[in-house]
Amino acid sequence: MKKVAIGQAGGPTAVINATLAGFVKEIERDHSLLFIQNGYEGLAHGMYLDGDDEMLSRIHLHRDVPGACLGSGRFPLTDEHIEKGVRLLREQGVDVLVFIGGNGTMEALAKVELEAKRQNFSLQVIGLPKTVDNDLGGTDHAPGFGSSARYVAQATRDMSRDLASMQNFEKVRVLETMGRNAGWLAAASGLLKEYEEEGPHFIGIPERPIQAEKLLENVNTALNRFGYATVVVSEGVCFGKTGQVARGNVAGRTVLGGISNEIASFLKSELSVMTRAELLGMNQRSFSEVVSDVDREEAYRVGSVGGEWIREGVSNVMVSIQRDAHHRYSVRMTPIELQNVVAAGERVMPEVFIEDQKAYYHWLKPLIGEDIRSYPPPLQRTEMYVD
Amino acid sequence: MKKVAIGQAGGPTAVINATLAGFVKEIERDHSLLFIQNGYEGLAHGMYLDGDDEMLSRIHLHRDVPGACLGSGRFPLTDEHIEKGVRLLREQGVDVLVFIGGNGTMEALAKVELEAKRQNFSLQVIGLPKTVDNDLGGTDHAPGFGSSARYVAQATRDMSRDLASMQNFEKVRVLETMGRNAGWLAAASGLLKEYEEEGPHFIGIPERPIQAEKLLENVNTALNRFGYATVVVSEGVCFGKTGQVARGNVAGRTVLGGISNEIASFLKSELSVMTRAELLGMNQRSFSEVVSDVDREEAYRVGSVGGEWIREGVSNVMVSIQRDAHHRYSVRMTPIELQNVVAAGERVMPEVFIEDQKAYYHWLKPLIGEDIRSYPPPLQRTEMYVD
Repeated sequence: MKKVAIGQAGGPTAVINATLAGFVKEIERDHSLLFIQNGYEGLAHGMYLDGDDEMLSRIHLHRDVPGACLGSGRFPLTDEHIEKGVRLLREQGVDVLVFIGGNGTMEALAKVELEAKRQNFSLQVIGLPKTVDNDLGGTDHAPGFGSSARYVAQATRDMSRDLASMQNFEKVRVLETMGRNAGWLAAASGLLKEYEEEGPHFIGIPERPIQAEKLLENVNTALNRFGYATVVVSEGVCFGKTGQVARGNVAGRTVLGGISNEIASFLKSELSVMTRAELLGMNQRSFSEVVSDVDREEAYRVGSVGGEWIREGVSNVMVSIQRDAHHRYSVRMTPIELQNVVAAGERVMPEVFIEDQKAYYHWLKPLIGEDIRSYPPPLQRTEMYVD
Repeated sequence: MKKVAIGQAGGPTAVINATLAGFVKEIERDHSLLFIQNGYEGLAHGMYLDGDDEMLSRIHLHRDVPGACLGSGRFPLTDEHIEKGVRLLREQGVDVLVFIGGNGTMEALAKVELEAKRQNFSLQVIGLPKTVDNDLGGTDHAPGFGSSARYVAQATRDMSRDLASMQNFEKVRVLETMGRNAGWLAAASGLLKEYEEEGPHFIGIPERPIQAEKLLENVNTALNRFGYATVVVSEGVCFGKTGQVARGNVAGRTVLGGISNEIASFLKSELSVMTRAELLGMNQRSFSEVVSDVDREEAYRVGSVGGEWIREGVSNVMVSIQRDAHHRYSVRMTPIELQNVVAAGERVMPEVFIEDQKAYYHWLKPLIGEDIRSYPPPLQRTEMYVD
């Protein structure tokens, strides 16, 4: 029997608790559990919850609830925190440390592993992946992204239909998705587009600065052909002279947001039409009613596999999802060394997906789960005009 | 056989096309149809679509698609427009005019009816109700509201769970709903709240100016007890010296929005905590995946009933929804004179619902349709703190 500590870190997703539940289910009979609250803060300061029977059953009740039920948050983790955090784990007799998180978390776990070695403390370390914006390296994708992509695609299509019917009042909507450095979510906005008229009519991603002329051309074409235009951009996109727009700086972390406002103002002044900016906001990572069933199952399975690896003594790795080369979508979970995840850096969209949208949607489609119904083509307008 | 013209007006809902489909289904065998595009604009300028077989089948395909498939929009309708619009209908040999809309639409229809009389033109006029913010008088509620309320309640609960897990980074979220003069939607945000800890912890509605001391007290209490606070306000709420905040003025119509930013800034400066404002936005009227099944069915039925009344020769009325006094939720559709709808004015929340939240939720519950799953109580925090 090992003593296993687990925590959740970074921005939550709608399925991060499924990973926790899958992990706990796999090991609860054989090992004892210690839950770390509030992510790195809890690691640094020993904020623990005892894994008694009641706590274990409550974890399972949270499987399909959004947010990180242990508490997550953001906390600037220093070397001193890591030194102290490792010492506290050792004092508690912990044998295994597991964190569910993204890039930053895998980097932190790699440092924890080194610090444990320095303290002559034999600590098994496993990372479980999660992300909403798919910027985590070393894995085909990570739990959380499929549900966010599904949400973005649905919200964009619905808002575009809404805008189509309001075109004598409002001409352009600029929707802003999450994605500080990677355009996966913004690009997902077009997944359900079946007709030329359907939005989005322009997508901006951080991997390519937006060219004002190209933006104006696409919007103008849509305005002329359909009477309205839907634009979708990542929060981290570069536009105009100022580039990224910082909305505020909180605890040393720049909070992005607002580039959609800048683009909407630009289009309004250039084209003299009514425009509106809208942030898709926190729903992208928390709206639980449209979670992808594939994403939810993979999130749970990632946790189970991490649990299995405890028995096998694997350490210093993250559970990665690798897609089989079959025609039909299927995945394997394989270990990837934390150093390799860190070395991969923030994962941006590859050239091939940026240049070939169809290739990206072919890759993305299985991740959003259960089929989403088609919409009929928009009704044609101004067929008869008796005035 | 009568010739029936129908249009959609004002802001769309996720079920406005269900009303159109229900109406068309009821009358398509017996009457001929003419579709009016782009709401009042199409009425004023004779923008018609011929109701041939292909068009009728396309209307049915749009039944569950958000937005107004005929085009709706906003258009300042003058007396001259009405005079001309009625003349164009007469020239087309139209016998019946039907519009799906809210307060403004019922007022416009009443004027059209008078103008037709003035022109010695025998025109049957019927209004079909729709709203997202439930400000339409003369009816228990109107199609569109149930789905929006469901969306607001779900988004609030999910974002509150998300915030709970981020409380070492972010302390207060201020969510802003639609509702220029009526608080129905903002108040709906608490429908799924089962625990004291669950958000919302403060709700602001236009019917009552927000008292800064009360707001601070509620937020402070939540911060002290739970570590975070979720605030929900209507776009039209009065706060501070400036009262309503205008974001812009487009075509004579004030676009509200931004009061959540003002409240978030106020709380940040008063309490020195990180806050975030978020507009729930266009999803409130367009997000089609969480539509209330009760709302969708009532929307369709409102259309069918309007169609039945054409045979009965009823005129100058709106189809209203009246709740039966049974224990189990059921409704009847009854005619209410357009003048009475207009006289009722914008419908705000009654005193009894403002003072007794439980009474409001008892009234609201059946409208949001299919049961929404419960969430378990949030996990308690800081049980053990070894540092």
